[in-house]
Amino acid sequence: MSSTEKLIARQEDFNEWYNSLVLKAELADYGPARGTMIVRPYGWALWENIQAALDKRFKATGHENAAFPMFIPKSFLEKEAKHVEGFAPELAIVTIGGGEELTEPLVVRPTSETIIGHAYAKWVQSYRDLPILINLWNSVVRWELRTKLFLRTLEFFWQEGHTAHASAEEAQAETRQMLDVYTDFAINEAAVPVIPGEKSENERFAGAVQTFTIEAIMGDGKALQSGTSHYMGQNFAKAFDIKFLNKNGVQEYCATTSWGLSTRFIGAIIMTHGDDNGLIMPPRLAPIQSVIVPIFKSNESERNAVLSAGDAIYQELSDLSVRVKLDARDNLSPGFKFNEWELKGVPVRIEIGPRDLQNNTVMISRRDRPGKEGKQIVARDQLGATVLSLLVEIQKAMLDKATAFRNANIHDVTNYDDFKTAISSGFARVWWAGSSIDETRIKEETKATLRCFPLDQPNGTGTCFLTNKEAHRVAIFGKSY
Amino acid sequence: MSSTEKLIARQEDFNEWYNSLVLKAELADYGPARGTMIVRPYGWALWENIQAALDKRFKATGHENAAFPMFIPKSFLEKEAKHVEGFAPELAIVTIGGGEELTEPLVVRPTSETIIGHAYAKWVQSYRDLPILINLWNSVVRWELRTKLFLRTLEFFWQEGHTAHASAEEAQAETRQMLDVYTDFAINEAAVPVIPGEKSENERFAGAVQTFTIEAIMGDGKALQSGTSHYMGQNFAKAFDIKFLNKNGVQEYCATTSWGLSTRFIGAIIMTHGDDNGLIMPPRLAPIQSVIVPIFKSNESERNAVLSAGDAIYQELSDLSVRVKLDARDNLSPGFKFNEWELKGVPVRIEIGPRDLQNNTVMISRRDRPGKEGKQIVARDQLGATVLSLLVEIQKAMLDKATAFRNANIHDVTNYDDFKTAISSGFARVWWAGSSIDETRIKEETKATLRCFPLDQPNGTGTCFLTNKEAHRVAIFGKSY
Repeated sequence: MSSTEKLIARQEDFNEWYNSLVLKAELADYGPARGTMIVRPYGWALWENIQAALDKRFKATGHENAAFPMFIPKSFLEKEAKHVEGFAPELAIVTIGGGEELTEPLVVRPTSETIIGHAYAKWVQSYRDLPILINLWNSVVRWELRTKLFLRTLEFFWQEGHTAHASAEEAQAETRQMLDVYTDFAINEAAVPVIPGEKSENERFAGAVQTFTIEAIMGDGKALQSGTSHYMGQNFAKAFDIKFLNKNGVQEYCATTSWGLSTRFIGAIIMTHGDDNGLIMPPRLAPIQSVIVPIFKSNESERNAVLSAGDAIYQELSDLSVRVKLDARDNLSPGFKFNEWELKGVPVRIEIGPRDLQNNTVMISRRDRPGKEGKQIVARDQLGATVLSLLVEIQKAMLDKATAFRNANIHDVTNYDDFKTAISSGFARVWWAGSSIDETRIKEETKATLRCFPLDQPNGTGTCFLTNKEAHRVAIFGKSY
Repeated sequence: MSSTEKLIARQEDFNEWYNSLVLKAELADYGPARGTMIVRPYGWALWENIQAALDKRFKATGHENAAFPMFIPKSFLEKEAKHVEGFAPELAIVTIGGGEELTEPLVVRPTSETIIGHAYAKWVQSYRDLPILINLWNSVVRWELRTKLFLRTLEFFWQEGHTAHASAEEAQAETRQMLDVYTDFAINEAAVPVIPGEKSENERFAGAVQTFTIEAIMGDGKALQSGTSHYMGQNFAKAFDIKFLNKNGVQEYCATTSWGLSTRFIGAIIMTHGDDNGLIMPPRLAPIQSVIVPIFKSNESERNAVLSAGDAIYQELSDLSVRVKLDARDNLSPGFKFNEWELKGVPVRIEIGPRDLQNNTVMISRRDRPGKEGKQIVARDQLGATVLSLLVEIQKAMLDKATAFRNANIHDVTNYDDFKTAISSGFARVWWAGSSIDETRIKEETKATLRCFPLDQPNGTGTCFLTNKEAHRVAIFGKSY
């Protein structure tokens, strides 16, 4: 059962608000080994809805799922120079198996490019075997020191797509297509108004030629990288010898991509939408879209009448494909239940009591509009239609609110002082012509990083806010967790 | 692309038939680390259908999915004496993380009872928190020496259910309920006529009070344990201190269960139904239920007419929720395609050529009835209805055939000589009053193990075939892989 203690206010301590909300709402818990995470049923149900929404999009774009081993021979990581440089410090290594020291230690996958490269080299012979469009739903391990539930844990759950193509153009189109898929998912399923863009060289995936990202702004103005799509060029194809005979009978290397979105996205949902009373779930992904709270006194016949009305509502909404729950627990007060379902962010609450039975009505409350404004008394025979349209309306209202917040917290600045003010509460959008070294300097001085060069660019050129050089694109900077 | 070399005949070398079929049909491949497995898209699509069929049943019986970390502190395994005895020799152990030697090594889960026990002890306080009904879809690692794709690999994919209850009776009912779920799934979805029963003490799960199993007979007469359900009594509750305040305010230990079914079941499907031409997929689980092979010569207008008829059939069958594929590859002959889809076990093949267009017909072939008997010419406007009813008919015919095979290969025997003959080609069913030591002796002398005491028992008593003592139940013995 969820705790009944009140959450700390978001304004007071956003970090503490987040940590205690994740635990109290029973989304996740700490595993016994340092930095590991248990995703509890309510959190996993959210992840299953995220998976379904993404998986549908992956299959519609021609991808198939598969599964690869979690153990990778350590030597594989070393075949791509930048890849090993990026991942070597974060590896978990199995040195003992079946009671014996292994002759070659096995790495628990931090990501699967290398083992995929090995398999694709075997499977691809001719241009007719291409493209290979495979996605994996699994977990990976990175030995993080500062961990935080969902955002950064030793093991995390994700999907990783890995594709191989006959040409650079096709692989680049795939990279961008999957960025579009993530953007569409984030905006239209999660109501998280992400900014799609390209990473700078400093922030690129280890081994990639280009990394694209969707960046989200959280309730405290910080940035969360919420999904990435990488164009590898021939880097991995050369490291693993993924070659094919082209139509002219000539051997060529493939071009490859990879793209991933993880349970970190649950963090994005929590910190985009949550308020001082708890989670607010976007209806399209909510594990429970509507909860029915029956209200009755100890009187047995009243209790039976109200519960049977609750059952009828449950059945009606289930038949309309609403994910609905009837909270019939009789050891808890309605007030306790209201708090608990608010904490868990259920979009629509339905109350039904003896007076409603008399009047043939129910009381409906919107989670995203606390107080009177979000309440309405609805005729019983209008309930189904009202809930369905409310779910659509809430989804839209959540996206509108988050988009307004995002827009209000992106500041166009032209000098370093204003930049520092901007990134103290949100994003700074700037013309940028700095070098990698300039970027590192900003990070050291302000803790802000270049989140992305947004795809959506203004016309023309401008003056770099730092170097005063002529700049051909704008960048977004922000602090992250 | 699948290999075109012919499979070895099942009769000639069942083991080699199986191994090469798994590879050629692109169900799976070997991973680079010894004993690991890549499940390729065609194999994973089958597993996804198995998952969906089971998950629906788990949810209908009140279970929720969650995810637990793969890393378990080594000391956890040691808390339940028999559990550690069973699993210690098979562990993969992480000793290095983030470049440093770990102070406590981490085990990669061989199964999750211990880490679950740790969490449940924290989550359960009162009888109101019970039961906990959780299932995990994940992979586990056991350091096997003799490995075989799907049947026994270092890492395998499965589900593991873990439940905690307020009473022994409730936990026992859960154990049996999940055995029933597995039995129903195996028979009605996979057409694998399993025998549900209880394991002997020798074959029990390490730490269980009772282990139930579904046992299947393969095409070579060997036994395959295809799913298990364990009643743990209070063994794990005591080891991990899972206690609750009962209704009378007294502290009690919970009773727990666990139950699992793995990708090994794919092996059961292959070896129950496959023939010399390859796989035969049960329609309800088949990744592709029907394949359309268009037949045309190089003539462009003929090709276009046939392909557009193929498209129309594809659309029509998709609309009827048939999982259908149009094989429009134009670099391969129809004969090559026929062999490939036979190898992959697609239940219904539809051929369409120029003559069919003229006659307004199509040719339909059943995978489970090779030769003329399985072919029919069907009027084009009867196609949809015919395919739908054929899929049901094939499912039933496969179950009937497998059941007849099973029944013909269970031999009731009353002495050790006949027993040895029986287990050379199938199962021996015997009255059994032997001891664990007798059972071990039989295993050493004949390689046969006590597969289960079937739930379906004859009335009365009999004479033990080995000891001549009075026996109260029959047991089934068989050889396994």
